[in-house]
Amino acid sequence: MRIGGVLNLLGKLLIILSLMLLTPIPFSLYFRDSMSGVFLLCSLLGLMLGGLLLALFLPENELGYKDGFAIVTFSWIGLALLGALPYALSGAVPSFVDAFFESMSGFTTTGSTILSDIEVLPKSLLFWRTMTHWLGGMGIIVLTLAILPLLGIGGMQLFQAEVPGPTKDRLAPRIQDTARILWSVYLLMTLTETGLLMAGGVDFFNAITHSFATLATGGFSNFNASLGHYQSTYLQSVVILFMFLAGANFSLHYMILRGNLRAYWENEEFRFYTAIVLIATLLIFLANALAGTYVDHGRNLRDVLFQVVSIMTTTGFGTADFDTWPPFCRILLVSLMFVGGCAGSTGGGIKVVRFLLFFKYARSQLHKLVHPRQVETIKLGNTKVPQEVMIAILSFFAIYLAVFMVASMIVTALGVDIITGPTAVIATLNNIGPGLHLVGPTQNFGHLPGLAKLVLVFCMLAGRLELYTVAILLTPGFWKMTRKPLWRWKKKQEAAA
Amino acid sequence: MRIGGVLNLLGKLLIILSLMLLTPIPFSLYFRDSMSGVFLLCSLLGLMLGGLLLALFLPENELGYKDGFAIVTFSWIGLALLGALPYALSGAVPSFVDAFFESMSGFTTTGSTILSDIEVLPKSLLFWRTMTHWLGGMGIIVLTLAILPLLGIGGMQLFQAEVPGPTKDRLAPRIQDTARILWSVYLLMTLTETGLLMAGGVDFFNAITHSFATLATGGFSNFNASLGHYQSTYLQSVVILFMFLAGANFSLHYMILRGNLRAYWENEEFRFYTAIVLIATLLIFLANALAGTYVDHGRNLRDVLFQVVSIMTTTGFGTADFDTWPPFCRILLVSLMFVGGCAGSTGGGIKVVRFLLFFKYARSQLHKLVHPRQVETIKLGNTKVPQEVMIAILSFFAIYLAVFMVASMIVTALGVDIITGPTAVIATLNNIGPGLHLVGPTQNFGHLPGLAKLVLVFCMLAGRLELYTVAILLTPGFWKMTRKPLWRWKKKQEAAA
Repeated sequence: MRIGGVLNLLGKLLIILSLMLLTPIPFSLYFRDSMSGVFLLCSLLGLMLGGLLLALFLPENELGYKDGFAIVTFSWIGLALLGALPYALSGAVPSFVDAFFESMSGFTTTGSTILSDIEVLPKSLLFWRTMTHWLGGMGIIVLTLAILPLLGIGGMQLFQAEVPGPTKDRLAPRIQDTARILWSVYLLMTLTETGLLMAGGVDFFNAITHSFATLATGGFSNFNASLGHYQSTYLQSVVILFMFLAGANFSLHYMILRGNLRAYWENEEFRFYTAIVLIATLLIFLANALAGTYVDHGRNLRDVLFQVVSIMTTTGFGTADFDTWPPFCRILLVSLMFVGGCAGSTGGGIKVVRFLLFFKYARSQLHKLVHPRQVETIKLGNTKVPQEVMIAILSFFAIYLAVFMVASMIVTALGVDIITGPTAVIATLNNIGPGLHLVGPTQNFGHLPGLAKLVLVFCMLAGRLELYTVAILLTPGFWKMTRKPLWRWKKKQEAAA
Repeated sequence: MRIGGVLNLLGKLLIILSLMLLTPIPFSLYFRDSMSGVFLLCSLLGLMLGGLLLALFLPENELGYKDGFAIVTFSWIGLALLGALPYALSGAVPSFVDAFFESMSGFTTTGSTILSDIEVLPKSLLFWRTMTHWLGGMGIIVLTLAILPLLGIGGMQLFQAEVPGPTKDRLAPRIQDTARILWSVYLLMTLTETGLLMAGGVDFFNAITHSFATLATGGFSNFNASLGHYQSTYLQSVVILFMFLAGANFSLHYMILRGNLRAYWENEEFRFYTAIVLIATLLIFLANALAGTYVDHGRNLRDVLFQVVSIMTTTGFGTADFDTWPPFCRILLVSLMFVGGCAGSTGGGIKVVRFLLFFKYARSQLHKLVHPRQVETIKLGNTKVPQEVMIAILSFFAIYLAVFMVASMIVTALGVDIITGPTAVIATLNNIGPGLHLVGPTQNFGHLPGLAKLVLVFCMLAGRLELYTVAILLTPGFWKMTRKPLWRWKKKQEAAA
């Protein structure tokens, strides 16, 4: 690893985040919540830290494969640490572990919170909270894809390490163009949702923050009742629609915007994604109806559709306390948590395309048992899926499960109960937000032991970065440094010599 | 599929089972429980049914690949149906679904019971209950391997379909010899355990029945308190030892008996299996000690070792109510349920060797991320594992998980709660016995809805027959029949013409 180049780049990213830390200041001034000073201080601290890294370490033009992994993982941790400062320094979240949890939950677009009363937070801090979502979700992915190359690095290895899902549909041959395109789509959709929410009577502040949290499939809301605060079918429908779109591949949205109106329908993953949402909604609606959870069928349908889309896309917004629904509904929702969004979306989880390919593979295996001599090929759309991709997907499932098991054991070993512990791991590993029981939709993560929170932070990060980018840190070979001048002063010494 | 040949063979197996149905009669006469008539009747019914199949259908010398799957699955279902008759006809288990559940739980060596009071059952029925274990466990595997070829069929395809685990170490070049060897080892170990238990003061009846249940990793006990009935460290140690041996590859036992005393140590799977048992015991012992579950550390260690070996080998005997242990212990035990025994043992679950290869694969994948150009090969012992075997193992994990998820959803949809439902599925799919909460070690499966019991019966069968043999029934191609004379009278007509 070329640690110097990696740290130099991290310095640049910290400076960008420091500038973003100034964006809540207008809201602070408008709402007079006296947070301007805190954000200014945090921004200055970030600028100093970033500047220090730039001053100490040389930039590197030839960053390689391993460096890509290092940059992705280190910058997520570094940005979450800097993003935690406003919570901690304002006194809103006294414990730094809690502040780090909240910040990482934001940047990984998880949406799990340690706060029991969200509404007492200063407005500008609420803005920052959803801003971390927005930056984190597709934001940071696209920003790093678009900006890193501008900083002088061909980011192909980053694309490999970071774009969610096993497919790498390239919209444009050059990665900077890809990033710019996705960023425009993302911005356009955020503004559209903001506009539609405002048309339904929501004020600008709540409209833009909830749009941030929707498009990032994050799930932080400004209200203790989450989206249940807005008991309007129009508003909830807008949020359902944009959660659903945020959980789909953003390159499809681009194609639609470019005029290819059949793009959604032609995409096999999108069809499978839509089918899962509709079937799950129907099943849970029926189960609720049979169990008599709701008196009003319309309300049942609206709540179920909202919750299915929210969970499946790993957003985590709530309009109902699904922890009180019948066991079947809860098991089905927990299963959907693992499925997650489409590849190329801001959603977390294992990703729809991996499940789609897994089903195709399982079917072909059964077919092979009956007809052992036939050669089976698996296709996605019109493309043949190579065997290596199938192995990678199957091993991803197995490793995902192993991480879930080990993390659940650690969390329950710290004294968390047998429903809360595993579902807290599921909710963070898949970047959803709420779990069941003591971390259910009406609860929060604040009461968990500090060490359990750090394990969950690890889960958020591992889930968001598709496991491998985090797992690679555990291999000794990764930490082998390239013998090159690292520090600026060393370079100067060499130049002088 | 050559359905005629398959049904002819099923007829032969039913006749063999009918003869086994006479074995409880001496016990019935000795204990004067007036069950002799019931067993005689069941035996006669079985003989008639088997004879009818033999009379109607022609034997087939050229049974193929698909027929192997059909024989394995159909005979397991057929034998379990016949084996359920004594429960139903004696009136001990009034509902036939319950009787079928108990019988399938026996033949699949699961050990889940629908009985709330075991001790009121007639002694000869208790004998039959563990006899189904013994026949089912390795018994039926070996019997079908040894007897089917005697019936005129080269059973290689059965070996493929039936021997647990991905490895197919052949002890002898011909399958009949293999079967005979394994059968002798199995019998010898059963008799040894019986002798050791009797030396500790257990009467012959309880010694042999508990040995049947141990060697088959079944778990049916004659006592409501299971092995907790014998609060003797000697007796529990004997059972721990034989459960542990029953969970290991029987070809290793054969090698040991032949004088190769390093056979256990030289086997990588056996070392991994031993390591898991020891580490899990240590962790659960410590968790119990810290939580103060036990006052007496010696008792804690004995109970934990017993429970870890019992769960890991999928036996399911109990000496303690682990449902009252701390959450961490329960989660770890549930994880061990998935691991199961070694390949070539009578244990269920995913099998140790699959986990071993999965860990090796995960490590090699990480290594590959750091050193992308190195070629990684995975070895088991000194043998290179082909890539196809790796794919098969990874897809087995994924399909196993999918079956678990779907079955859990169905069971909870039938109104079972969120701990009981999924752990009931885990306990049956992995052929263990008890789950948690309402199907915990001190509870039983009798209170579940009838349909849920049938789903669990499916899980037992699918788990025991390594999923594929059952899953193949779901493919339409499997049911395509071979155009050949099927009935005996058709053959006669042809001969006359």
